[in-house]
Amino acid sequence: MPSERDNIRSLHAYVPGEQPTAAQTAAGAVIKLNTNENAYPPAPAVMDAVRGVSAEALRLYPSANAAPFRSAAADLHAVSPQQVIATNGGDELLRLLVTVYCQPSGQGAAGGLGMTDPSYTLYAVLAGIHDTPVTWVTRGDDAQGGFPLPADYAQQLNAAGCRLAFLVNPHAPSGTLENTDTLRTLAQGFEGVLVIDEAYADFGPEGESPGMQLIREGQDNVVVLRSLSKGYALAGLRFGYGVASTTVIAALDKARDSYNLDALAQAAATAALGDQDYARGRWAQTRAQRTRLSDALRERGFQIPDSHTNFVLARVPQGGPAAADYYQSLKAKGILIRYFDTPRLADRLRITVGTAEQNDALLAAIDGAAEGARC
Amino acid sequence: MPSERDNIRSLHAYVPGEQPTAAQTAAGAVIKLNTNENAYPPAPAVMDAVRGVSAEALRLYPSANAAPFRSAAADLHAVSPQQVIATNGGDELLRLLVTVYCQPSGQGAAGGLGMTDPSYTLYAVLAGIHDTPVTWVTRGDDAQGGFPLPADYAQQLNAAGCRLAFLVNPHAPSGTLENTDTLRTLAQGFEGVLVIDEAYADFGPEGESPGMQLIREGQDNVVVLRSLSKGYALAGLRFGYGVASTTVIAALDKARDSYNLDALAQAAATAALGDQDYARGRWAQTRAQRTRLSDALRERGFQIPDSHTNFVLARVPQGGPAAADYYQSLKAKGILIRYFDTPRLADRLRITVGTAEQNDALLAAIDGAAEGARC
Repeated sequence: MPSERDNIRSLHAYVPGEQPTAAQTAAGAVIKLNTNENAYPPAPAVMDAVRGVSAEALRLYPSANAAPFRSAAADLHAVSPQQVIATNGGDELLRLLVTVYCQPSGQGAAGGLGMTDPSYTLYAVLAGIHDTPVTWVTRGDDAQGGFPLPADYAQQLNAAGCRLAFLVNPHAPSGTLENTDTLRTLAQGFEGVLVIDEAYADFGPEGESPGMQLIREGQDNVVVLRSLSKGYALAGLRFGYGVASTTVIAALDKARDSYNLDALAQAAATAALGDQDYARGRWAQTRAQRTRLSDALRERGFQIPDSHTNFVLARVPQGGPAAADYYQSLKAKGILIRYFDTPRLADRLRITVGTAEQNDALLAAIDGAAEGARC
Repeated sequence: MPSERDNIRSLHAYVPGEQPTAAQTAAGAVIKLNTNENAYPPAPAVMDAVRGVSAEALRLYPSANAAPFRSAAADLHAVSPQQVIATNGGDELLRLLVTVYCQPSGQGAAGGLGMTDPSYTLYAVLAGIHDTPVTWVTRGDDAQGGFPLPADYAQQLNAAGCRLAFLVNPHAPSGTLENTDTLRTLAQGFEGVLVIDEAYADFGPEGESPGMQLIREGQDNVVVLRSLSKGYALAGLRFGYGVASTTVIAALDKARDSYNLDALAQAAATAALGDQDYARGRWAQTRAQRTRLSDALRERGFQIPDSHTNFVLARVPQGGPAAADYYQSLKAKGILIRYFDTPRLADRLRITVGTAEQNDALLAAIDGAAEGARC
């Protein structure tokens, strides 16, 4: 029998952050600040919506194109429902974009998928599955520990022949935000489709996000990705959506699995968007805790670029424990944070903003690790 | 900006069966026998499981690989959990198989995906999205209105250079069943990966299905697809799974979206498999109604191959209304059935087996349509 295609065999699958065992979670033994879940629960209306789904609704096929959700999202962003596609997590939208716009190797793939380094590493995995090349554009280093976007990103993508490029904004894993003017210049200069991954945008400044502003301006080569995993505290639900021109959405829709979202998820997601007051209150709490956590870590000598997300990327102080040692020390105390063993990130820790109590415990554990190293 | 790839632009997307509006459903105004949903509700344990999912479980990422469900499915079929992959409907599994085993055009695609005609038309759509060719193998015609599988299916696939082939068994849209000996010969003769789509197998003869028997025998180029949409009355849930060798499952797993199944669906699906007594009772009811419906239609002159599914394919009697006319007449009375306007199916109706009351209404409407045509 044939084996899998060469690109699949050589693929290093995406490695999600570790999850505590069910027993650990049940015992409350773990403080989980490693995969950027929202620190607060989803809105009560979400649970009501889930419990309101009938057995009859599960027996029948769901709305094939998530019509009620798309209508709610369209109202929220002042676009038409035909400008919205709902997907099984933001990850499905990313996959659809690669499928629809990138040629596989051997078909004139040219530059394939454009992305920056560092960035969300799943992007490159999706390119690998599709067997399209990746054009990496290296970000700079600034005095705050951030990774500024090169001013000639569009030109580098065009020179490589990329038909599609991803830009996560606010940036992961640093949390920094590019403004609307920068993105407009980028979108106007890039000859391909620019995907602005706004998975964390809900935690950014209040008001319409830079990506949504470009959509409203009619920038027709821009796709904005949103996720309910972070802002709406629904990582367990797998629900994301894309907003773009009707032409782009229609093309993506053809590559979508015919019934990609179940009836429960559709009901829950629609209810989540429906309670904006609840969501906004939680985003404000997250911003306040982010400021407090950033300040406290900076006082301890950590270098942190200004975050507009629900996490911070903290470079450890020189002369103290290495980042990997902090990670291990905290893990031993039941506190999970993220450590990336890659060249540009190996001296940093990515820490999800928790509740006030979780952040207290985190800071105490960091102090303990630093203290222990001095003994 | 670039447009979508040529294969996407030229694609005719899969057309699901029509769904009544929410208002029609709420008013009970429609008898829906067109998309092969189970006539009976899901098990009460499923609804309990859904209502037992906490807000905290939705806040956190779900099990990335649906570990509890895979364990339950492995127990049910007496295989190991590493032989099971859980997917967002059976459709996701089909897509993963095409992604992992079929080369796109320009990369030595050769015969691409092998399939029979007629068959589940989504298969060819998935090949089109992946831009791999389709090798069509034409089924025969028998005296009962069935479409017998050619004895040289494996040889035709090998001659075309197919690395992957799909076979739906029981067959859609005819409902007929190939036995284990036939499938073993096919699997042993085919040089590629043979996918036996058992979406409807729960309604077949009691006991282990032909595909599962081959898995148990260690036939390592066989993948069996199962769905909870039909047998477990959970079309609204989007949950399917594949069973194969650990090698094949590991390859498929690399191409899967990293969190492809939400916490609610995982809980519901695990509960559904857990109540086999309930499921078996409903399958027996469906078989009884299928026999009754088939007999009643044959008495009226319809030709129906023996079905092992929850639908029948009925060729209309000569001299009466055309199939398209029956379809329209029933639709006008609020009864939805499926009509395929394609050369080999245009004289037939595909009718989902309903409850006793629904089947009564269907038969009365068919009599009315035939009577009306004679007036």
